[in-house]
Amino acid sequence: METSTLSKLAVRVRYDILQMTTEAGSGHPTSSLSATDLLTGLFFGGTFRFDLHHPQDPCNDRIIFSKGHASPLFYALYEAAGILSQEDLMTYRAMGSPLEGHPTPRFPYAEAATGSLGQGLGIGVGIAMNARYIDKLPYNTYVLMGDSEVAEGSVWEAAELASQYKLDNLVGILDVNRLGQRGETMLDWELDAYEARFAAFGWHTIVLEDGHDLDAVQAAYREIDHACGRPTILIARTVKGKGVSFLENQDGWHGKTLSREQFDRAVVELGPVDLNLFGTIEPPVQTMPARWTPMPQVQATSPNALSTREAYGRALVDIAPSHPEMVVLDAEVSNSTFAATFGRAYPERFFEMYIAEQNMVSVALGLSTRGRVPFVSTFAAFLSRAFDQVRMAQYAMDRANIKFTGSHAGVSIGADGPSQMGLEDIAMFRTLVDSVVLYPADDVSTAALVRLMADHHGICYMRTTREALPRLYQEGDAFTIGGSRTLSRSDDDRVTLVGAGITLHEALKAAETLAASGINARVIDLYSIKPLDIATLRTAAAETAAIITIEDHYAEGGIGEAVAAALSDVATPVFSLAVRKLPMSGKPDELLAYEEIDASAIVRRVQEL
Amino acid sequence: METSTLSKLAVRVRYDILQMTTEAGSGHPTSSLSATDLLTGLFFGGTFRFDLHHPQDPCNDRIIFSKGHASPLFYALYEAAGILSQEDLMTYRAMGSPLEGHPTPRFPYAEAATGSLGQGLGIGVGIAMNARYIDKLPYNTYVLMGDSEVAEGSVWEAAELASQYKLDNLVGILDVNRLGQRGETMLDWELDAYEARFAAFGWHTIVLEDGHDLDAVQAAYREIDHACGRPTILIARTVKGKGVSFLENQDGWHGKTLSREQFDRAVVELGPVDLNLFGTIEPPVQTMPARWTPMPQVQATSPNALSTREAYGRALVDIAPSHPEMVVLDAEVSNSTFAATFGRAYPERFFEMYIAEQNMVSVALGLSTRGRVPFVSTFAAFLSRAFDQVRMAQYAMDRANIKFTGSHAGVSIGADGPSQMGLEDIAMFRTLVDSVVLYPADDVSTAALVRLMADHHGICYMRTTREALPRLYQEGDAFTIGGSRTLSRSDDDRVTLVGAGITLHEALKAAETLAASGINARVIDLYSIKPLDIATLRTAAAETAAIITIEDHYAEGGIGEAVAAALSDVATPVFSLAVRKLPMSGKPDELLAYEEIDASAIVRRVQEL
Repeated sequence: METSTLSKLAVRVRYDILQMTTEAGSGHPTSSLSATDLLTGLFFGGTFRFDLHHPQDPCNDRIIFSKGHASPLFYALYEAAGILSQEDLMTYRAMGSPLEGHPTPRFPYAEAATGSLGQGLGIGVGIAMNARYIDKLPYNTYVLMGDSEVAEGSVWEAAELASQYKLDNLVGILDVNRLGQRGETMLDWELDAYEARFAAFGWHTIVLEDGHDLDAVQAAYREIDHACGRPTILIARTVKGKGVSFLENQDGWHGKTLSREQFDRAVVELGPVDLNLFGTIEPPVQTMPARWTPMPQVQATSPNALSTREAYGRALVDIAPSHPEMVVLDAEVSNSTFAATFGRAYPERFFEMYIAEQNMVSVALGLSTRGRVPFVSTFAAFLSRAFDQVRMAQYAMDRANIKFTGSHAGVSIGADGPSQMGLEDIAMFRTLVDSVVLYPADDVSTAALVRLMADHHGICYMRTTREALPRLYQEGDAFTIGGSRTLSRSDDDRVTLVGAGITLHEALKAAETLAASGINARVIDLYSIKPLDIATLRTAAAETAAIITIEDHYAEGGIGEAVAAALSDVATPVFSLAVRKLPMSGKPDELLAYEEIDASAIVRRVQEL
Repeated sequence: METSTLSKLAVRVRYDILQMTTEAGSGHPTSSLSATDLLTGLFFGGTFRFDLHHPQDPCNDRIIFSKGHASPLFYALYEAAGILSQEDLMTYRAMGSPLEGHPTPRFPYAEAATGSLGQGLGIGVGIAMNARYIDKLPYNTYVLMGDSEVAEGSVWEAAELASQYKLDNLVGILDVNRLGQRGETMLDWELDAYEARFAAFGWHTIVLEDGHDLDAVQAAYREIDHACGRPTILIARTVKGKGVSFLENQDGWHGKTLSREQFDRAVVELGPVDLNLFGTIEPPVQTMPARWTPMPQVQATSPNALSTREAYGRALVDIAPSHPEMVVLDAEVSNSTFAATFGRAYPERFFEMYIAEQNMVSVALGLSTRGRVPFVSTFAAFLSRAFDQVRMAQYAMDRANIKFTGSHAGVSIGADGPSQMGLEDIAMFRTLVDSVVLYPADDVSTAALVRLMADHHGICYMRTTREALPRLYQEGDAFTIGGSRTLSRSDDDRVTLVGAGITLHEALKAAETLAASGINARVIDLYSIKPLDIATLRTAAAETAAIITIEDHYAEGGIGEAVAAALSDVATPVFSLAVRKLPMSGKPDELLAYEEIDASAIVRRVQEL
């Protein structure tokens, strides 16, 4: 497209940005204005390939606004393309409008939810990996970033992995406007400094001295080599507030909107706005995505009970033939999480994410937006490294179909000590709207729960244990999300013991001891922590004198609090045994005893009642 | 010290590493062996300056094992220095031993707890900032890192900030042994690649082609320039398992210990071990730390009620004269969190941490280990970015005296939408052992709670609100950690409404409405969410028919679950109003209504009962 047409479209986009933010009285116009020419050039200059009428076409290029607060620019581009109307823009940030303050897929052209800075590049890595290694389609993925946000370590994790995986179909666009929320960024307009960093991380760099020169912008996009084996970063010197003289390069305007009077002055400066001129976006090249037809793999059956973590790995291999959309990611602990079992069987669908958990989660989200089903694993404790990325994934709504598994749950991992112990993972994953949280106690139930996770659309989390635990179930036993299993029951149960994972076994031992002294205890395997089997719990509350929950997890936000909350309108008391003291290195059984969550502690608690 | 003596000490250290891990049957000997010569040279070659009999001497150099699984090396060094005995080493990883699997300050020479990789450099940045800018002492801080762990983005956040703050008193030691937990690292032995990255981030780089050549190691340490305005990274090519032929550079030995037979063979290879030869560590230069005597600043009193976030900033300024150990950190949102109020008043104690929350928390921990009291702020939602760092801080025990404040809590922030809304922060901070979680509802109580946090030793978290809320309290009203305040009470209360922050105000409005229709409601301000005022809650449970908690936070792990758990042995029902639907952009009052946590929803709930 001719530069003069692009210039006019850029004016329209600037007008839209100012219109919608002034109307809303809320938003980030100056942050949007600095990237306007870069994105107008990308969208309407022939670089970006997208079928506006089929946003989910697998052949489309993809754009992520990692710089999510530039949402006015994002929506303005689609108005300039004729997808949104001027009236639509006037709903910006209003309740119920798809045009939210930071993009979410309520606006169908947003791939995921952004707005927590530094996460977009990782999502782009996932989408680009899908293109290169899974769909094997030639589309490109573009990620707009601000300069302030590249302080986030997650950007460098993504940069590293993009380079490692030779993602020459990934393009970063860095809007270097030098002004952060409250003053200058660390690197100001030192484009060389950014260039040296990205180059050192293996990226091809293109420096744009003037990110507002549409000819230069176009030339930069044409320069990108999608066959060079390296991702590209376009580092552009821009001006915050560009296009409005009293905003340009002024500190103090971040997140501030114009008054009506200022808007009127700004519009005069912009010059004529041609609302009859729309931008056109090139449609994508149509190619068929690759198909994966995994052959079933024979796995020697195990007569002995496996640890749930080992069962996880086997289950991944078992489900692959019926789940061709699955992808497995792990953060350099796959020999511990047993994701490596899948990695050996199906190396084409296993991707090592190295010790960079934040990026792993963002990559999973990117893959999920493209219809893949990622299975993500590391130690439960280390998933806390990526809580913000997990938090943001929920706001991608049904595009986040991710299965997380955290191994080495609890103090029962033993001698490695607390740094490696997952003790807050149940709490973390329970906070997500509509999440599923599962905790199998043996290898058979693990296999069943992995299948349930695979077939449930949404964010799921499963906790696995380091130690091998006795086998409790057999093939054919039924497990359901929101279900539970009662392992010990009589008409004369005095108390209910609710456990999961390792503490279920402690509860069973305790029940035996109690039975020997004439106290019948109902034992429930609460393998589905969220959603809970409320019916079974309420029945137990009605039929027994007390409920005791036992968990190898901190008390706060865990099983005990979930059960107490679910039964908070019922008179039957709920008592919680959980990890309440700072843990340390030791043997598993010593630690379970120290934290008073072993069979002896359960027996003592019952006797006290 | 002569190289031959250092060589003998290195043999002793290797022997110790193999002894303690073989005895424990647990640990990471090969990861410890690769860094042995680097650390033996550092400790006993005259570079490291430390008074072994006064580990808390403020003048000491500091060493952090970011590579926490090399704990055998860490303890072996202190054995070689005569601080630990051979018998002590035999307790490695045993329950109750200070020699844990990954270092914690149960071993007094460990500055903090490490073992979750990639966090040590940030802790080092905090300690080095303390030296440079606060204590103004000439000590140096050394951080041992493994190559696998520099994939963590947190390392690059730390690298960036170290450079920004010109920390030439910070030295990174990078043990490039090329083998991660399950195979090769991304960069193998490409020392140039690591060098290019650190150099691009502004570090001075020293490359050691042979990290086992003690002469070269010594020369490298002597080369470090502590006046060049840049931190230094020593990048050393090492061999995993160095010193034992059958371990050297062999994949598959990560985290594996030797059998007795293998140990015996290894010891033969090591050669004679001189247990009479101890290493000596140079004592530090003794200088007096600087003193900060902040002058009180006059702040115009505000007749109008301030938002709690604005009150936070003012309170920081108010307490400074009586809290000379305080330091304030913020992640580029200080004009939103109002940490900037302190930053303007006392710029010498305010440190901008940029958009890098993980590093901010690690820096706070580092400062705290040196006796400072860090006040850390950003949006509540963005503290989730640093959950792993916060999690690890608790394992530093009493060395973690950090005060976190998360602003922009809840859906009530409005139009920015969910990416900016803190809805899981209460759950997150409640999981920490012995943490304090506070949530003031007006500016007066905010000031009181800031004082309480400042004087309480341990990890504290306070939630602040974007909107200005009506003033409820006056100077002199009492607030205590573990306390609450009852704002509305009669002898005929039918129901108890428990709120905090913005929902307290909704509860007060609801109580007015209910009173008008003849229903008296007790209203409790639960400003201390952890610990809870259990006595007041139990009294309310005894005196009213139901407790209703209302929070602008997800249900899981929040106020409702905390109260339900505390009253789980009491018959009175507890009902929880909380955020249960995925939020969106909108106006604050619209969102509170949508999530059914506003006054109308409270009234409806009471009427349903």
